[in-house]
Amino acid sequence: MRVGDIAIGGDEFIVMAGPCAVESEQQLLDTAISVVRAGARILRGGAYKPRSSPYSFQGLGVEGLKILSKARQHTGLAIVTEVMSETDVEVVAEYADIMQVGARSMENFSLLERLGTCGRPVLLKRGMTATLEDLLRSAQFVVACGNPDVILCERGIRTFETATRNTFDVAAVPVLKTVSHLPVIVDPSHAAGVRALVPILARAALVVGSDGLLVEVHPQPDNAASDGDQSLTLEQFDTMMRDLDPYLGLRQASDKSCVAAGGIN
Amino acid sequence: MRVGDIAIGGDEFIVMAGPCAVESEQQLLDTAISVVRAGARILRGGAYKPRSSPYSFQGLGVEGLKILSKARQHTGLAIVTEVMSETDVEVVAEYADIMQVGARSMENFSLLERLGTCGRPVLLKRGMTATLEDLLRSAQFVVACGNPDVILCERGIRTFETATRNTFDVAAVPVLKTVSHLPVIVDPSHAAGVRALVPILARAALVVGSDGLLVEVHPQPDNAASDGDQSLTLEQFDTMMRDLDPYLGLRQASDKSCVAAGGIN
Amino acid sequence: MRVGDIAIGGDEFIVMAGPCAVESEQQLLDTAISVVRAGARILRGGAYKPRSSPYSFQGLGVEGLKILSKARQHTGLAIVTEVMSETDVEVVAEYADIMQVGARSMENFSLLERLGTCGRPVLLKRGMTATLEDLLRSAQFVVACGNPDVILCERGIRTFETATRNTFDVAAVPVLKTVSHLPVIVDPSHAAGVRALVPILARAALVVGSDGLLVEVHPQPDNAASDGDQSLTLEQFDTMMRDLDPYLGLRQASDKSCVAAGGIN
Amino acid sequence: MRVGDIAIGGDEFIVMAGPCAVESEQQLLDTAISVVRAGARILRGGAYKPRSSPYSFQGLGVEGLKILSKARQHTGLAIVTEVMSETDVEVVAEYADIMQVGARSMENFSLLERLGTCGRPVLLKRGMTATLEDLLRSAQFVVACGNPDVILCERGIRTFETATRNTFDVAAVPVLKTVSHLPVIVDPSHAAGVRALVPILARAALVVGSDGLLVEVHPQPDNAASDGDQSLTLEQFDTMMRDLDPYLGLRQASDKSCVAAGGIN
Repeated sequence: MRVGDIAIGGDEFIVMAGPCAVESEQQLLDTAISVVRAGARILRGGAYKPRSSPYSFQGLGVEGLKILSKARQHTGLAIVTEVMSETDVEVVAEYADIMQVGARSMENFSLLERLGTCGRPVLLKRGMTATLEDLLRSAQFVVACGNPDVILCERGIRTFETATRNTFDVAAVPVLKTVSHLPVIVDPSHAAGVRALVPILARAALVVGSDGLLVEVHPQPDNAASDGDQSLTLEQFDTMMRDLDPYLGLRQASDKSCVAAGGIN
Repeated sequence: MRVGDIAIGGDEFIVMAGPCAVESEQQLLDTAISVVRAGARILRGGAYKPRSSPYSFQGLGVEGLKILSKARQHTGLAIVTEVMSETDVEVVAEYADIMQVGARSMENFSLLERLGTCGRPVLLKRGMTATLEDLLRSAQFVVACGNPDVILCERGIRTFETATRNTFDVAAVPVLKTVSHLPVIVDPSHAAGVRALVPILARAALVVGSDGLLVEVHPQPDNAASDGDQSLTLEQFDTMMRDLDPYLGLRQASDKSCVAAGGIN
Repeated sequence: MRVGDIAIGGDEFIVMAGPCAVESEQQLLDTAISVVRAGARILRGGAYKPRSSPYSFQGLGVEGLKILSKARQHTGLAIVTEVMSETDVEVVAEYADIMQVGARSMENFSLLERLGTCGRPVLLKRGMTATLEDLLRSAQFVVACGNPDVILCERGIRTFETATRNTFDVAAVPVLKTVSHLPVIVDPSHAAGVRALVPILARAALVVGSDGLLVEVHPQPDNAASDGDQSLTLEQFDTMMRDLDPYLGLRQASDKSCVAAGGIN
Repeated sequence: MRVGDIAIGGDEFIVMAGPCAVESEQQLLDTAISVVRAGARILRGGAYKPRSSPYSFQGLGVEGLKILSKARQHTGLAIVTEVMSETDVEVVAEYADIMQVGARSMENFSLLERLGTCGRPVLLKRGMTATLEDLLRSAQFVVACGNPDVILCERGIRTFETATRNTFDVAAVPVLKTVSHLPVIVDPSHAAGVRALVPILARAALVVGSDGLLVEVHPQPDNAASDGDQSLTLEQFDTMMRDLDPYLGLRQASDKSCVAAGGIN
């Protein structure tokens, strides 16, 4: 699967990074410049936010999309951003390179159907209570509606354990890679819920065969409009990328497919 | 809360019954005539169906809404039907008395926002992995967007237990009645997943203070387009209603609020 | 199944009540005298307690068993008490009428095996993460070891919901009654975790066909050594029993088996 | 923590391997000779088995312990084996180097108390529905009873996902390492439930900072008395150990503590 000159699901480990929400041009450009230097290939940032309250921050909407677009021009990063509503598909597709479907929307079949004809790859996040079978069914829905370019994203599931925000189902990666040909990435930020665990879960994701990461990064997490607790600072993201480096070396030295390398038939 | 001459959340125990999906005029009218005789006050039936596959039955759409409307004229039953997409809100509101939000859409905030100004009461089903706090937050979202008439619906949650389709969280009813003033009903059909358990879970719902039920009924469940396993026949629904009758008697004799009657502060 | 002159699993709805732990002769006798008047047939009270810390209250041991025995003499109530260790089976069987296996011990197969030859009925509580199939397998283990007298007890399961201590799986009662001939009772105290919900869950248990209840009652819950939050006062227990009375009337008027009455094949 | 010349929780990554159950001298010696060559330091094998049915294989008991002891003499491997019953603690401690507590026994406080004075390190497996807090409380119980040498073992938790036997909670490792000073190992065999996933979960365990592994290995998994589906062959175990080798290299090159290396305060 190709996004511009980026191949997802191939040899390269693709890191998507950026703030939960686009808050300002300054915030986004600072982040974009920093993450591209650290090795990210795709910039994330929400322009339309799931608002659990009508009074909470809703995202900048089209203005946010324009800021994302400007960051792409400056840095060469491709853009992934969430689309929450069928009625926004067209405008989001105008600006974004990859259309993100959030965990809460994984079974919004009207939205999925519309994304089947949007002409952009879709990043589909696993619902917090979805089985892998449920996730694949939603992916197949997009494919059957005409769009073969779906990226699956494990982001933790809801369990009784409260030490982490969600329970990162690390085995989901090799299982999905075995039963499907679609790329699989991991969002360690939502899985962990606290930034201290993000780099270590990212490392686990890499070694079990994930095709990439989706990571929340913010210049000033403590002032973030949302998800500050689980966002890395620019410096911490850089440290994480350097920590991952030797593991990436092993990945390339060994078989391309971690499942083939470590799994046994 | 009033729907025509029906008060929901008051003294009366309101039963909503009908097929999972509107399949034909004959099917719906047969069901409507039978359930109104048995004591139902509201007719349920899906015109727009969540399609887990683009090839599966999608509902009859506007034609289904027209059939529902015809059944209302014949029987006097009010109509509750699901709306899955913001773009359908207007047309559904034209025909329906109550707008149903399915479990998969409980956190579709774009849809909820649109329902805040639809001018119809909203029946909000609990997501299969939603806490009661999540459910109330979604309800408050609709209310804050301008629509105070929200009915909460417990329909079972996802757990490790596989003997039933979902785990009916019966305690949700008194908890919701205690912390919220909104009416609370129960969908025993989705909670159970098999018709043999529906009447007994309905009975439990009644005695813990539910304001009503949402029950799947079909003239020929074995030929139903969807959810046949958990649909009662017309005769079984009639039997269930007669089984509930003495419990309704107790309910009215005792305090109106079951929580007040059985609960202890 | 008979315990002295009490038949469990027959027409009568058997209520077992008493404190979480036997704390003193005074406490237990006060409770016993009060619950027998309110209609309980069996007295519960722990002499050996699961100690989550070696420093927490461990129960009075043999002294507790003797106090239970004295309460039986005074009131005629039969005694149910927990046995946690194989090495205590003999001494507990000397004093108790029913041997209780706690949720944490449901898969302690060494203990279950020993209970197969203890000569007393066994009350087996569902593990907090046990499927109904797991519960039945543990019961069959006791039966296969020589003891056919096993009472199953639903007490709530562990889920993501935190509004209640556990999620009361009310459907477990009719499912167990359908697939097994063993008596099934409900512990609404552990299911709820707060006393205000206990009477209403007890009512739900009754109408879905439970053969009885296991309820925590304490003369001064706020001073209880354990589980005070979910213990009813003596007066609240009395109120609950009177609240259940008309539902018991309905139960006897209708079919003996609630599943047969309300369920549909 | 030391077991003979083996330090657990230090620089070395300690692999414990062997069959689910000791079935015969031949089976165990073949396994022991093979796993020691591949790099294992400790031999696992059950002499007392949790029998979910009284008719299923119960383990060889004392005879099994003697076979384990013989394998130690031949290979120099230390021995870890499960103790299920307080009454077996003494005899198991006579033969074993490490006393294993199974997931089903994690809250068997009588057994834990007895292990507090057994004079051997204890390997404590997380219950399938236990929070990390529950696990630590059980560990503290053993420590408070006099035995500071407790090894924690993550082995997957019960969730709604059915693609794997359990859901491997990989984040448990860094969380436990952060809040406790006790060694933490991982059992990828029970987490996965199928052998194809074992090596890849082992790799994830290693890179998140686990102090070792507990792996099921059998000369002929298809003929194993128990857990054959998740047991590696001798050759597959050898392949897995060689696959882990470069990751071990990275581990030693970097900080000893993976949390320190990858985590961010």
